Amino acid sequence: MIRIGILGYGNLGRGVESAIRQNPDMELVAVFTRRDPASLKIRTEGVGVYSVDDVLSFKDKIDVMILCGGSATDLPVQTPLYAKDFNVINSFDTHARISEHFADVDRAAKEGGKVGVISIGWDPGMFSLNRMIATACLPEGQNYTFWGRGVSQGHSDACRRIEGVKDARQYTVPVEDSVNRVRNGENPDLTTRQMHTREVFVVAEEGADKEKIDEEIRTMPNYFADYDTTVTFISEEEMKKNHAALPHGGFVIRSGVTGFDREHKQIIEYNLKLDSNPEFTGSILVAYARAAFRLFSEGQTGCKTIFDIAPAYLSPLSGEELRAHLL
Amino acid sequence: MIRIGILGYGNLGRGVESAIRQNPDMELVAVFTRRDPASLKIRTEGVGVYSVDDVLSFKDKIDVMILCGGSATDLPVQTPLYAKDFNVINSFDTHARISEHFADVDRAAKEGGKVGVISIGWDPGMFSLNRMIATACLPEGQNYTFWGRGVSQGHSDACRRIEGVKDARQYTVPVEDSVNRVRNGENPDLTTRQMHTREVFVVAEEGADKEKIDEEIRTMPNYFADYDTTVTFISEEEMKKNHAALPHGGFVIRSGVTGFDREHKQIIEYNLKLDSNPEFTGSILVAYARAAFRLFSEGQTGCKTIFDIAPAYLSPLSGEELRAHLL
Repeated sequence: MIRIGILGYGNLGRGVESAIRQNPDMELVAVFTRRDPASLKIRTEGVGVYSVDDVLSFKDKIDVMILCGGSATDLPVQTPLYAKDFNVINSFDTHARISEHFADVDRAAKEGGKVGVISIGWDPGMFSLNRMIATACLPEGQNYTFWGRGVSQGHSDACRRIEGVKDARQYTVPVEDSVNRVRNGENPDLTTRQMHTREVFVVAEEGADKEKIDEEIRTMPNYFADYDTTVTFISEEEMKKNHAALPHGGFVIRSGVTGFDREHKQIIEYNLKLDSNPEFTGSILVAYARAAFRLFSEGQTGCKTIFDIAPAYLSPLSGEELRAHLL
Repeated sequence: MIRIGILGYGNLGRGVESAIRQNPDMELVAVFTRRDPASLKIRTEGVGVYSVDDVLSFKDKIDVMILCGGSATDLPVQTPLYAKDFNVINSFDTHARISEHFADVDRAAKEGGKVGVISIGWDPGMFSLNRMIATACLPEGQNYTFWGRGVSQGHSDACRRIEGVKDARQYTVPVEDSVNRVRNGENPDLTTRQMHTREVFVVAEEGADKEKIDEEIRTMPNYFADYDTTVTFISEEEMKKNHAALPHGGFVIRSGVTGFDREHKQIIEYNLKLDSNPEFTGSILVAYARAAFRLFSEGQTGCKTIFDIAPAYLSPLSGEELRAHLL
């Protein structure tokens, strides 16, 4: 049994908890939180909730610690910190800071003789893996990444910070015409606006200036200004009824050419349709936690990304079983 | 530069030759054939064609030998034979004999201190990789593999062996209704007949009994009997004009569930649309030839499959570049 700890118990932590149940070779040992442990009720019977302050007392009881905090402030600090004492894995997704984060985790993990796996999930994660392999197999071509239709939690949060907004949900939507052109192998150059639209559903506070909210959302720099955005005001009941789930997905397309005269189009598409974004991310984290433990068991140390891990490490099946049933 | 040899110069050998041109870190050193070398004209200037009997004189001039023979009789013999003296890679695709082939190549490659990579292409190959990773990430679910629309060379050959058939081309076609049900997450149990239909275009010899040919094709055991097959007779000109290319493709779908009550559907699809099947297979072989050379350079030996190779080995980019641009 591979003994797992979860640090941070939000949507992602719960996704990891439910994924562990689907993997008979893994068991959840403890959940760590910065909140009052007594305030937190988890779903797995017989498993304790502890303060993050007690984490070191689990040094020999946990094989891999899955870090489920946020990329903005939690993971950059927590990951190198805990990599000294635990094999760790995270879903760090701030693309611009990955190099720095890799170096930090690599140093700490090597110091502790542990393995740290970073940026695991679907983007970064499965999408990166597919971009990378497809690029290596079709060196001449273009990559396209479309997200959605799905809920972006970062964009939803940004809307919630606007005055007069009680609740908000933002959907990222690929532009169908552009998707079709890419799938046809046209290799178009697409602007940000041509790739995705954004749909926002807002519950306004009573008496709020809806016109102003609409304007403020649609012109928000980075988040919305470069997109065609529609804002729809709905009731609190409607929000609960129709927008409680966290679906997401998207697709990575490599559109390349082969042949002595580059005369043949070759199109690779990796496509996800997810009813639950955090549960899918949690499931991937758990599979890569298995890999982290195995790499550690072989004596490897330091930071690894999805590019560095041979796929066989993800599966509970032996090499022989994999060759017989999945090759 | 990674120095490549090609052994066997049919459609696949030419696909490999054209792929090498798209990879600036690789060079073609020689092509080996069982035919009279003088009879063979290749596309790369300044590169010689040699008899397979001369292959050992290239022992120190070739880093990876790409074996482009057939799976039925060539590769089972050639791969262990040459793995003693070269790093080798092949696209061995007889699923039922992979375990045996792995053992043969593993023994020979270890004896010679070389690396042998087997069953690389898209199925087995990319499809296997996606089936395996998706299965590890969504342990509860079902895998579906659809092929086509595309030319199956094995089925085309089978038709050509029938008396009165001058030429034939067989297309494998996924059944759209079944595909839609799978994409909807219905997880249907599908029979062979429900997954694919087969379309055969036949040029009959003058005076041939077309009714008999039609009957013989549609009832051929293993190849056609379990499918709904349509046979269309066409002229030689039509065959040349409309059926000269070798397009193929298909998709692997993992349809799984997550959540404490298995309440969320999660669907992963990997989809290929290929204008040229042999050129795409050749491109993948070349990327994995790079990996074979690197594994060998690190001191590894023995047989590897697509499951055993960390993706980073496929790319000419450094780990740092991969993290910066593709993660």
